[in-house]
Amino acid sequence: MSLLEESGSPMKVVTAGIAGFADDLAAQGVAVTRVDWRPPPPGTEGDLADVALDRRRGEANALAVRQMLAAGCELVDVRPAHEVLGLAAGQFLHAGPPIGWERASGPLRGALIGAALFEGLCETSEAAEAWFGGAGAGAGPGAAPDIAPELTPCHHRGGVGPMAGVVSPSMWLFEVRDPAGGGTSWCSLNEGLGKVLRYGAFGPEVIERLRWMAGVLGPMLQRAVRRRGPVDVKSIIAQMLHMGDEGHNRNRAGTLMLLRELLPSLIENGEDSREFADVVRFISGNDHFFLNLVMPACKLAGQAAAGVPGSTVVTVMARNGTDFGIQTSGTGDRWFTAPANTPVGLFLAGYGADDANPDIGDSAITETAGVGGFAMAAAPAIARLVGGTAASAVATTRLMYEITLAENPAFTVPALDFRGTPTAIDAGRVVRTGVLPQINTGMAGRIAGTGQVGAGLVTPPMECFTQALATLAEHAREAESSGSEV
Amino acid sequence: MSLLEESGSPMKVVTAGIAGFADDLAAQGVAVTRVDWRPPPPGTEGDLADVALDRRRGEANALAVRQMLAAGCELVDVRPAHEVLGLAAGQFLHAGPPIGWERASGPLRGALIGAALFEGLCETSEAAEAWFGGAGAGAGPGAAPDIAPELTPCHHRGGVGPMAGVVSPSMWLFEVRDPAGGGTSWCSLNEGLGKVLRYGAFGPEVIERLRWMAGVLGPMLQRAVRRRGPVDVKSIIAQMLHMGDEGHNRNRAGTLMLLRELLPSLIENGEDSREFADVVRFISGNDHFFLNLVMPACKLAGQAAAGVPGSTVVTVMARNGTDFGIQTSGTGDRWFTAPANTPVGLFLAGYGADDANPDIGDSAITETAGVGGFAMAAAPAIARLVGGTAASAVATTRLMYEITLAENPAFTVPALDFRGTPTAIDAGRVVRTGVLPQINTGMAGRIAGTGQVGAGLVTPPMECFTQALATLAEHAREAESSGSEV
Repeated sequence: MSLLEESGSPMKVVTAGIAGFADDLAAQGVAVTRVDWRPPPPGTEGDLADVALDRRRGEANALAVRQMLAAGCELVDVRPAHEVLGLAAGQFLHAGPPIGWERASGPLRGALIGAALFEGLCETSEAAEAWFGGAGAGAGPGAAPDIAPELTPCHHRGGVGPMAGVVSPSMWLFEVRDPAGGGTSWCSLNEGLGKVLRYGAFGPEVIERLRWMAGVLGPMLQRAVRRRGPVDVKSIIAQMLHMGDEGHNRNRAGTLMLLRELLPSLIENGEDSREFADVVRFISGNDHFFLNLVMPACKLAGQAAAGVPGSTVVTVMARNGTDFGIQTSGTGDRWFTAPANTPVGLFLAGYGADDANPDIGDSAITETAGVGGFAMAAAPAIARLVGGTAASAVATTRLMYEITLAENPAFTVPALDFRGTPTAIDAGRVVRTGVLPQINTGMAGRIAGTGQVGAGLVTPPMECFTQALATLAEHAREAESSGSEV
Repeated sequence: MSLLEESGSPMKVVTAGIAGFADDLAAQGVAVTRVDWRPPPPGTEGDLADVALDRRRGEANALAVRQMLAAGCELVDVRPAHEVLGLAAGQFLHAGPPIGWERASGPLRGALIGAALFEGLCETSEAAEAWFGGAGAGAGPGAAPDIAPELTPCHHRGGVGPMAGVVSPSMWLFEVRDPAGGGTSWCSLNEGLGKVLRYGAFGPEVIERLRWMAGVLGPMLQRAVRRRGPVDVKSIIAQMLHMGDEGHNRNRAGTLMLLRELLPSLIENGEDSREFADVVRFISGNDHFFLNLVMPACKLAGQAAAGVPGSTVVTVMARNGTDFGIQTSGTGDRWFTAPANTPVGLFLAGYGADDANPDIGDSAITETAGVGGFAMAAAPAIARLVGGTAASAVATTRLMYEITLAENPAFTVPALDFRGTPTAIDAGRVVRTGVLPQINTGMAGRIAGTGQVGAGLVTPPMECFTQALATLAEHAREAESSGSEV
């Protein structure tokens, strides 16, 4: 069989899904463009058709996308969670969809134990474990307090938390506001890497650091932000994408730019020079500090796109260490969950694949809003952290255009000649193409108390999207039968 | 003519230099790899042969390269030029090879006028112009002082200056040291962009800023560096290449990292908070501030490679606004000069190609040491400043491997999967391949007093390299006839 056209111009073939055929062609010297396409999961054809035929969909998605892209983000204050959220003793927030202690993974349990110790609710980790496990109140010295613990997702309170995402009343939060749509959100302050609460560690150095963050760091940042006025977080995200950051696992330039914004006010506030130097060393020694502002900025974008009937835009992706959950615009606050996958990537010295907990954290909100894994072409150096090559980072961003509805004009990628990042995941496209959102992430140790063990790449389970699609299809059929018109 | 092999695999053709042939092939659908090769300039064949046969060359270049790559750079102090260099009233340093007032371009004249005003040697720009022009001493009120002006290249004093590169006794300098080889170098402090002395502006705001830099900025940086101890500049350069900077016209991340290094000491020194805030705003509002440390770091690398008999490695590339000059390792301090080209690029609003002065400044030392234009693949966003595309930035770095002898293991490019930057230009390869070093640069207005008009791309004139090659060939013949052996 000749694979060359008579004109002398070599044939170009596009193959979809069937690797064997592409391999045969490539072996014969034919240029093959492989499209990573798989047939929709069995049983989804009807839902895909119903959603595709939903007459509301075009305008609904256009509105959701417009609002997602329009959302801005300003840092407006820094305050403790009991002030911001009215959080009371015994109340804890966590990352991902709802979960109780009994199904909680090691790192979430570890972070909850640490938070109980930090709040002075329990004196030992054993007592905390018993308390969360339902041992009841007053079970002996150093044991549980007279209240029952209460676990709520951060997303249910309009905010986000990285990794375990545990927030307790005395922890300080960044408060952000969307100047375009008026929405608000928040995120905890970043502790740094290694043995830290959000990765499930709860040793004395973890609690000590949290005390310093609540006693020195938070109040000093509050004074600086209040003196300065709002900091434009969205503008810093735009700049960091031109400086080798992707906003999820690289936030080096972002952290330095945040520090630059706050410095004059920090100086003019006449802070104690020893504490001031400590704060500057802490922030500038933690390349992830700015992640905790990228996340609520992306939450504002997701919120702005939420609640549009008929829209298939994904507004939340979040993991609690056991389940992965998503929400879509047209289905409101409803979670679609399935067991979380475990990331594949690179490990810190002394750890391996067996040590990794399944995917955890609200940080996948970054990919939901078109940065993080979706912007990896802007951050080729991330390959050193999560695995892969410069070419695979670019390929990842390119692939995400297949499942998104927009290119963000505010977030551009120099290496793609300033093309906007792929933004606004369409749940329908995910099911139809089989292309899953690419998330890059830190990896927590699966045993409570371990801390970080590595970083890598992961995707959500397809089941989240097929479930969401089924509900969107149900709504479409209801809208059709009730005769609603666009 | 069939251009396809019988096996069915399309023919691949590499063409060198002859565009017509490549175009014909491409039109017939054949994959053509074009190599930008031109025959050596007429008359250079003999010199190329003599240098190629120089038995010292292999080891000499290996030594020069080894020393260039080994050179480190630490910021060790900040002091005024009269202290560092013993510079006296009436003595001025400038960028590029030697030049007098009569042949000096507009921006160099403008900077000299400004320096004379700043030093209080003259009261008006007209008086300064007359003084530099040789009007002689005591020619009336506000006129020339009782001394004659003296112009010397920065390179002759072991340092570098961006653009006009004018240094006068009261200006403050960064002092750097190579901890590997023990060499020292220096560079002035960066004034920011726009109407600034180094671009030839000399208005009152320029002089006022220089006074503040000498009175507040320099002394405060001195106190910080002295409290802190040496700052590892080479390490910051390595990091900035992973953060979208190339070290010549993008120094955003580098500037923030320098600030991060100095902050704790600045804080602990208990500076006046108003002046401290001013300094922080000045540095963090000037994305080029760190350029003035990249340059002397690269000068240390060039110095380390200098003076190896038989080595064809380029150790200096510098321009005075009229002439482009280079030095090579095997030819010592001798300059090889030719008229400077004028950059092609993008202009600030209100300016165009007619306003641009020919290439000026010692900043081409960055390309000499393998960053700047040679590292453009690390900084695709630079296309917005100097023109071109992300692809052309990558292509530029790739092309520079053709004329360099090493890949710098300390300076790596994430987008090329951490390949080292092309380092150590071989004058012989430049002549043999016709590929000229690619420099990216700011553009000064050709009229004294204008300031910056744009930024763009430029190459040295080939004549610098053919002259250097002729001298290297002469030395080779001498070494051969004197029977010297390696």
